[in-house]
Amino acid sequence: MSIPSQEQLKRAITIVGPLVHQTPILTSSSINRMAEAQLYFKCENFQKMGAFKMRGAVHAIHNLSEAQKKAGVVTHSSGNFGQAVALAARNLGVQAYVVMPKNAPKVKKEGVKSYGAKIIECESNLAARESTSATIEAEKGATFLHPSNNLDVILGNATAAAELLQKHPDLTYILTPVGGGGLVAGTAIASHYLGSGCKTIGGEPFAADDAYRSLQSGRIETNETVNTIADGLRTHLGDINFPIIKKLVSEIIRVEEDEILHAMKLIWQRMKIVIEPSCAVPLAAVLKQPATFKDQKVGIILSGGNVDLENLPF
Amino acid sequence: MSIPSQEQLKRAITIVGPLVHQTPILTSSSINRMAEAQLYFKCENFQKMGAFKMRGAVHAIHNLSEAQKKAGVVTHSSGNFGQAVALAARNLGVQAYVVMPKNAPKVKKEGVKSYGAKIIECESNLAARESTSATIEAEKGATFLHPSNNLDVILGNATAAAELLQKHPDLTYILTPVGGGGLVAGTAIASHYLGSGCKTIGGEPFAADDAYRSLQSGRIETNETVNTIADGLRTHLGDINFPIIKKLVSEIIRVEEDEILHAMKLIWQRMKIVIEPSCAVPLAAVLKQPATFKDQKVGIILSGGNVDLENLPF
Repeated sequence: MSIPSQEQLKRAITIVGPLVHQTPILTSSSINRMAEAQLYFKCENFQKMGAFKMRGAVHAIHNLSEAQKKAGVVTHSSGNFGQAVALAARNLGVQAYVVMPKNAPKVKKEGVKSYGAKIIECESNLAARESTSATIEAEKGATFLHPSNNLDVILGNATAAAELLQKHPDLTYILTPVGGGGLVAGTAIASHYLGSGCKTIGGEPFAADDAYRSLQSGRIETNETVNTIADGLRTHLGDINFPIIKKLVSEIIRVEEDEILHAMKLIWQRMKIVIEPSCAVPLAAVLKQPATFKDQKVGIILSGGNVDLENLPF
Repeated sequence: MSIPSQEQLKRAITIVGPLVHQTPILTSSSINRMAEAQLYFKCENFQKMGAFKMRGAVHAIHNLSEAQKKAGVVTHSSGNFGQAVALAARNLGVQAYVVMPKNAPKVKKEGVKSYGAKIIECESNLAARESTSATIEAEKGATFLHPSNNLDVILGNATAAAELLQKHPDLTYILTPVGGGGLVAGTAIASHYLGSGCKTIGGEPFAADDAYRSLQSGRIETNETVNTIADGLRTHLGDINFPIIKKLVSEIIRVEEDEILHAMKLIWQRMKIVIEPSCAVPLAAVLKQPATFKDQKVGIILSGGNVDLENLPF
């Protein structure tokens, strides 16, 4: 499989731009001192519905045919993608069905509901989610949207890094967390076409290091454990994003749980912003491998800010 | 006593501007919908050292004589003003002594220390703080800086509202929390000279409503209870800020503890920013008295973001 073209990326930027927030890019002099680097944080926690997932969802739904739009969209996601599909669908006048496990965090269920989507509850395992989604596809004729293994989603995600590179074209690196692989793949496409030798690096918890091992072995590996506070990163790579990652992501840096927590606290305390644990993984990676980033200009995609305030890891 | 002149305000703006961050002004469409008003949040939680107090501290220290600067400054504060004096003094090459109660939050002691000030610990009561400060004044010849009852501090604080009005000159109201009275007094000066009929309103917890009662009685009242999560608002008005408040603040709105907590959660969840409980009091006031603010443009000074993440009220 060849990677998406620059034309495809440019089209995505044109489509997604007016449908999302151009999120701010923040810096912190104290974190820069600690990292001995210049870090530029792209704040997708300030994105509509609170995460970069809005970009992929809005792009994928926008690109559906009129007939598909009329029948609606379905996804299974206990996390941000469910909310993103709900809001993006509402904004584009499309009905959304979101399959969620019964035990999904209350804040995320409320988010999906408040955006007007229909929630279909299921058991908390992948088989139940997939079969429930398949039923909705069959019954409603709805189009299934995968959170990360969908080219339009990946190209939508790419627009965050594209905005970052437009403001800071001289970045040496851009880092993202790696979960299902849709953000790091999209970011790598943007860095490849719009950066000036800018390398894309993924940050991943040791406790869910499928992407690291997949790059080592050359084929999609799965997680044996997912005991990580970075709850957005427990998912696996897919056959659409993996070839892009293999070709365009230069490295995956793995970090320990205490390093994720430390980085998360730094961002909350020093930058005064609310981010999810998953977002802290790239900063943890920068602090773990200082020789790589010393004196470099480094972009970091802060992927989202939807945390349950009553259930924080501090 | 007459209120400070427009010339004094303009001088403060010129002095303070280059020494602090021009903090961003954020909006939230979902909070606007709830309030049925257009709210403009001036994010002093993003200010240097994490609070508006930097503005007053830097202005007061800047205006000292060379001899005073050489001898240093002293303040007693368990909160943000200690950190503000520490950082402002360091940035201006002045030695700072900060008297803090032994049981002050760890995060605030660490802040003061990291900014190079000398901490002098004392018992946790006002008499101990004042006598310890007096000893430092006598021994070192240091100038005492009061957190709120000091005209240069008040004029420094005014610059946050001045920046807000520069961007949004048509605000009908600006709200601040009321603790010692230094922020609401400064804000009222800025609204008076720079606004277009803009009224200044204070928000205050019922549990520490000295300012409300002082405006009623016409003299400085003290708190009988201070059982509020808005820990920055437990202090009293002073003889320098009260005349300004009496003349220029149009109203104090009191709010209950659960209303403060609700407003705080709204700001964290919807705006994805970290603010102190005290900061949430003005939004709680807006939501409490909707008829006053309906369809109005309302500025809110978010006063600071230095919270102890291990001790949150959620």
